[in-house]
Amino acid sequence: MHLHQLMRDLREDNGSKIVLVVADGLGGLPMEFGGKTELETAKTPNLDSMVREGVCGLSIPVLPGIAPGSGPGHLGLFGYDPLEYRIGRGILEALGINFQVGPRDVAVRGNFCTVNDKGLITDRRAGRPSTERCVDMCKKMQAIKIPGVEIFVEPVREHRFVVVFRGDNLGDLVNDTDPQALNVAPLHAVGEDAASQNTAKAINHFAVEAGKLLKNDAPTNMVTLRGFARYPKIATMQDIYGLRCACIAVYPMYKGLARLVGMDILDAGATLADQMETLKKSWDKYDFFFLHYKYTDSTGEDGNFDAKVAKIEALDLEMPKVRGLNPDVVIVTGDHSTPSKMKAHSWHPVPTLLSAKTVRPDGAVEFGEASCLRGGLGQVEAKYLMSLAMAHAGRLGKYGA
Amino acid sequence: MHLHQLMRDLREDNGSKIVLVVADGLGGLPMEFGGKTELETAKTPNLDSMVREGVCGLSIPVLPGIAPGSGPGHLGLFGYDPLEYRIGRGILEALGINFQVGPRDVAVRGNFCTVNDKGLITDRRAGRPSTERCVDMCKKMQAIKIPGVEIFVEPVREHRFVVVFRGDNLGDLVNDTDPQALNVAPLHAVGEDAASQNTAKAINHFAVEAGKLLKNDAPTNMVTLRGFARYPKIATMQDIYGLRCACIAVYPMYKGLARLVGMDILDAGATLADQMETLKKSWDKYDFFFLHYKYTDSTGEDGNFDAKVAKIEALDLEMPKVRGLNPDVVIVTGDHSTPSKMKAHSWHPVPTLLSAKTVRPDGAVEFGEASCLRGGLGQVEAKYLMSLAMAHAGRLGKYGA
Repeated sequence: MHLHQLMRDLREDNGSKIVLVVADGLGGLPMEFGGKTELETAKTPNLDSMVREGVCGLSIPVLPGIAPGSGPGHLGLFGYDPLEYRIGRGILEALGINFQVGPRDVAVRGNFCTVNDKGLITDRRAGRPSTERCVDMCKKMQAIKIPGVEIFVEPVREHRFVVVFRGDNLGDLVNDTDPQALNVAPLHAVGEDAASQNTAKAINHFAVEAGKLLKNDAPTNMVTLRGFARYPKIATMQDIYGLRCACIAVYPMYKGLARLVGMDILDAGATLADQMETLKKSWDKYDFFFLHYKYTDSTGEDGNFDAKVAKIEALDLEMPKVRGLNPDVVIVTGDHSTPSKMKAHSWHPVPTLLSAKTVRPDGAVEFGEASCLRGGLGQVEAKYLMSLAMAHAGRLGKYGA
Repeated sequence: MHLHQLMRDLREDNGSKIVLVVADGLGGLPMEFGGKTELETAKTPNLDSMVREGVCGLSIPVLPGIAPGSGPGHLGLFGYDPLEYRIGRGILEALGINFQVGPRDVAVRGNFCTVNDKGLITDRRAGRPSTERCVDMCKKMQAIKIPGVEIFVEPVREHRFVVVFRGDNLGDLVNDTDPQALNVAPLHAVGEDAASQNTAKAINHFAVEAGKLLKNDAPTNMVTLRGFARYPKIATMQDIYGLRCACIAVYPMYKGLARLVGMDILDAGATLADQMETLKKSWDKYDFFFLHYKYTDSTGEDGNFDAKVAKIEALDLEMPKVRGLNPDVVIVTGDHSTPSKMKAHSWHPVPTLLSAKTVRPDGAVEFGEASCLRGGLGQVEAKYLMSLAMAHAGRLGKYGA
């Protein structure tokens, strides 16, 4: 039986409130053998007090050894098996620039490249143009007309952009036109089925027209396209859990991921304090709040251990505002680890705390990787955190008589 | 999505080296309440130091409560779900005697039995004949001719032998001819499909001829056959992980299992020191080494606690040779537990250590069952150890954007 159907069958509405705080890339590593992680180093009196009253564990984002991107990392936290629900690169790029992809759309990641007079690629990233030039070139391409298909050409940054093809019966089983090699021409797009052949035709038309328009704009004189993806059909969290769900995120990617699972996107402002203000103001209107905090990840990606520690401490300082609203369940976790030592997402399980009146206490006394190893949740796949939240909120009935 | 496809999609080659040391049947039990296990009793300063710098856990060979044989135990460690990849008894018996089964073969486990003058079985194991007699009887049966099918009759020991039927279009959906009862005749073989009917015909022909040849050789005057199995089609480890894989094992069964997943079988010599020498000499030619150590299992099967302790200490003494090669990842584990107290394979999770620069340290301070319970790997299904090895070796890219 699918986990989502189980949730639909067992769920009950008791008016309780759940807050999921995602500190992106929260988990870490010590810089030196015998040292502490970022979270263990940070002074987190408020989180520690939640740990003592709550239950802890370590969340496995996908499977042991698998480091996820933001897409699969968050889908897992929302209760969607990230190996079952896969989101194409084109869609993620579109979400990342806050483009609202719809059901008639195929989204594509585009790169500016440089071709020589024979049409062969000499630089796959067109010498990494400025973002300003990227914007100009995208505006130019927006003029391309394709019969029966509407297009949206949106800059991302440097050589990267997004194209959305909107029309009837457009499939996404199309090969990348980026050959991932030099001294060859961009590839011809071919669709695997009738609907995808429609898309391939539009793509090839787009590429020819782009080549004409950009002819004199070397080094940005050609484009390659990859990661063709339709907007995935996913049951909403409201449908699965019966929760009115809201997203309080600052960065477009996370708003996009939340929209994908049917959350309302609230105006969050720019700071954590703004996000807390939004939480407070919207408290009565929703049952579930996803609060996303980016900076634990970005500092980890920068390899800046001390800055990550400081960002964790800044989060800790705001936690009393969450608790002050008297939520029934608060989960604090991350979508993956981002150890400063590795400057990258990693597979290491993510420290996780669940605070509720219904928890069974455990041996964890502070919020940290080693302490969470002694937690009552054990090591748990992220996709089960929502079932645990629902249960602790008193929102799940008994399975079977 | 299948774990193997995930590995293929994410794998990267960075030239790193992985060593998997399998101490067969490593896990144990205390002989008396309150005592220590074999591994906890053994003095293992080298393994303990790897534990302190590494990450530990307990490996669940198949599922909680399931004690595996060598086949499923090792397949799990190589990253093949042992409930998905099943290897027939005939194949395992053939591997165990170092018979190189091929794609046109059906391998079968045979038993000598005793029949009376009405052809009814009076002893299913023919009074457990000497292995010498087994060899003689097998030689005799090797003379049997079957039209269109080549046969190989190979002794194992006592009443046990292997027959391999080689030919075109031979299936393995054939019932056992061993009725598992006395005072009944051996069963007629019946094939479930056309190819298996070919096999059944050859088997029945073989049984009739064996009965004639052995007529005057009571108590070994008849045979039963069971566990018909074709060589399984399994993707190689090279195909899944992109690793050049080598096996350094002394016993045929483990070489056979390694050959099954595409490893090169290296000449290992007879002792652990020989195996270490082979490891050193072959270091540059491979990315992954499977080093099998048999004696932790055989001493456990004998119920000889002290001997198992001594064999663990002997392994510990050789570990510096592995570390001296500076591998990126070393895993030390077992394919299952073989507690001396039980004199048999058991389901108890197996102490496991993973040593690498990218581990998150944990509370385990020595290599033992109780200590590993505090390990950062938690209790993990054996099939995920290869993904963890790949991740810690820096050989897996991010899943999703």
